[in-house]
Amino acid sequence: MGILERRDTNAVAYLTMNSPERLNALSDEMLAELQSTFDALAEDRSIRAIVLSGAGKAFCAGHDLKQMTAGRQAEDGGKAYFKDLFDRCATMMQTIQKLPQPVIAQVHGIATAAGCQLVATCDMAVAAEGTRFGVNGVNIGLFCSTPMVALTRNIPRKQAFEMLTTGQFIDTSRAEALGLINRAVPADSLEAATTELAETVAGKLGAAVKIGKESFYNQLQMPLEAAYDYTGDAMVQNMLYRDTEEGISAFLEKRDPNWQQ
Amino acid sequence: MGILERRDTNAVAYLTMNSPERLNALSDEMLAELQSTFDALAEDRSIRAIVLSGAGKAFCAGHDLKQMTAGRQAEDGGKAYFKDLFDRCATMMQTIQKLPQPVIAQVHGIATAAGCQLVATCDMAVAAEGTRFGVNGVNIGLFCSTPMVALTRNIPRKQAFEMLTTGQFIDTSRAEALGLINRAVPADSLEAATTELAETVAGKLGAAVKIGKESFYNQLQMPLEAAYDYTGDAMVQNMLYRDTEEGISAFLEKRDPNWQQ
Amino acid sequence: MGILERRDTNAVAYLTMNSPERLNALSDEMLAELQSTFDALAEDRSIRAIVLSGAGKAFCAGHDLKQMTAGRQAEDGGKAYFKDLFDRCATMMQTIQKLPQPVIAQVHGIATAAGCQLVATCDMAVAAEGTRFGVNGVNIGLFCSTPMVALTRNIPRKQAFEMLTTGQFIDTSRAEALGLINRAVPADSLEAATTELAETVAGKLGAAVKIGKESFYNQLQMPLEAAYDYTGDAMVQNMLYRDTEEGISAFLEKRDPNWQQ
Repeated sequence: MGILERRDTNAVAYLTMNSPERLNALSDEMLAELQSTFDALAEDRSIRAIVLSGAGKAFCAGHDLKQMTAGRQAEDGGKAYFKDLFDRCATMMQTIQKLPQPVIAQVHGIATAAGCQLVATCDMAVAAEGTRFGVNGVNIGLFCSTPMVALTRNIPRKQAFEMLTTGQFIDTSRAEALGLINRAVPADSLEAATTELAETVAGKLGAAVKIGKESFYNQLQMPLEAAYDYTGDAMVQNMLYRDTEEGISAFLEKRDPNWQQ
Repeated sequence: MGILERRDTNAVAYLTMNSPERLNALSDEMLAELQSTFDALAEDRSIRAIVLSGAGKAFCAGHDLKQMTAGRQAEDGGKAYFKDLFDRCATMMQTIQKLPQPVIAQVHGIATAAGCQLVATCDMAVAAEGTRFGVNGVNIGLFCSTPMVALTRNIPRKQAFEMLTTGQFIDTSRAEALGLINRAVPADSLEAATTELAETVAGKLGAAVKIGKESFYNQLQMPLEAAYDYTGDAMVQNMLYRDTEEGISAFLEKRDPNWQQ
Repeated sequence: MGILERRDTNAVAYLTMNSPERLNALSDEMLAELQSTFDALAEDRSIRAIVLSGAGKAFCAGHDLKQMTAGRQAEDGGKAYFKDLFDRCATMMQTIQKLPQPVIAQVHGIATAAGCQLVATCDMAVAAEGTRFGVNGVNIGLFCSTPMVALTRNIPRKQAFEMLTTGQFIDTSRAEALGLINRAVPADSLEAATTELAETVAGKLGAAVKIGKESFYNQLQMPLEAAYDYTGDAMVQNMLYRDTEEGISAFLEKRDPNWQQ
């Protein structure tokens, strides 16, 4: 089995990071596998939702510190390697939000540093009770500056600032209250809960979800008037889909839609 | 009685959407009535707060799907009509935020799609316990892209994303926890609670509330330094109002202000 | 004792606003003392965290209304003075966020108007149970437009709008739920709780916290891609600090870091 497994069922792609002995660290190899798998999924019209989980005891413990330390051997002390590493990581994170399909993080154990960033970056997240979340790089002298980008776009400021500067972990009820995850469930129903959410989303019209997800992140970065102009155009496009016409007709006629997707 | 009723009491305008058989859908007629009524209120200095409610079983169920479906008969399949419809709707929504008076949504039953957008757009919202909120267009293949603009400016990202892609409803406690409404009250005290809030606001100095509301939405879209420059100027203007001088003097002299408004 | 006391212990600077008879109002003198003290702390590498509290019954009751009223005697009715006052206040608030050290508000009694702005502006805040928070200028005809800038960057919109237009106070549980403070503790353990938080932060690598705090506020104002480019560069810089190399090595070798800071 590879470092990233993929299994497809009912229009959902289940991806499992499979490097449990390293707590699924985002090594060069893991980043490359995630990137190429997401790139392939971007073109795969048979998939309408994606679930990302981790094998073993943890969801993901962030960057691979041993690999980063090895990178210091270069003549420039690792500068070029680090720059490239953080670029590749940021590209992978942004790819998640650019995918046409919603991506759900299925989280257990711990999600720290870039692993917590991964949770914050996914469109939705369901966690097993007992999971702990942290952006704890500050404890070893490396502030979680890139994870912060995703974290501060999920939770309020003071709470993000505290996590970042104290390095302390939060539990699932706190993560849920702050908005970092959608909900926590008992560990033994985690997979069922995530699958149910993924299949619910996969049951919708993929073209509508695609235009909606794209608009979601784009309009968030626009002033109000521009956001309305932009999403108004998206609504017009969406109204003209054949399957949307069928969906509205079916609703008015109180029957199930007959979608071609 | 018309499709939109207006009753004025104690400097508060109470507007009631009155098309209960269509769950107060935002039809062409309803949008036109809301727009012209808000435009009139923008110039009405006797009114210092506005309450918007719906007659019948629901607050508002969003766009009028029958009317939209009829619009498809045009030669362009409805494209021009849909574009114009979403433009008119977005203009009406933005008019609410541009009004000098605070607008309070008094919500009961259901608030779905553009009806949920209306709740998110009003400056404040009070709901009857039992009300359900949803941006459920995705269920019929039409992603709630324009409602999303207002929703994502009220509640955290992951929670908004879930509502938009699952089409599931949330109840009043969830809506309150997420920030979509200010509070929920028992159904039989909804009107009293909303009236109390409206009269509290209407009891303030209208000119101060006007400059404050205008600054509220404008500064939110500015970088920090620009926001401070802009609101600093608003504070200076506000300090120079005759009634503000009187308000501060009255406070220092421990008496009630004698405002001319 | 001066209007602003400073005491340094264990790399933490404890500042106490000391004008209890005026509820620590942000008078011209208090603003000047806060500004010069923060400016000095910006250059003080021996300090890695700052705590700001108020002597007497209140944390801070906002601007000094008597002084502002006296300012009206000028030929221009106070216009130039008010402009300068709000500029100085906004500069002081922005200085807090630009400081290399995290600033923690230790709040008790009341925090109103610009006093509530001060709480919202500090990077973190701990409050004594029973503290009340308000942006209540509207009650005397002066909308809290500048406090609003900080408040709306801490808590959700509708809740901020309600506080600003009703002038009503919120208690500590509400302030905690909304995100205005990190947590509330019993009054008799306030100082201990704040000290513990400050010492936790002061125990981290100061250079990492410095680059992290600077990035925190800057990246919040950038679009996603720019935020990742910017924080990626910060991470590279941070990786190249001698003490960060030592911190990571110590972690991998399961020992305490030997930092030179």
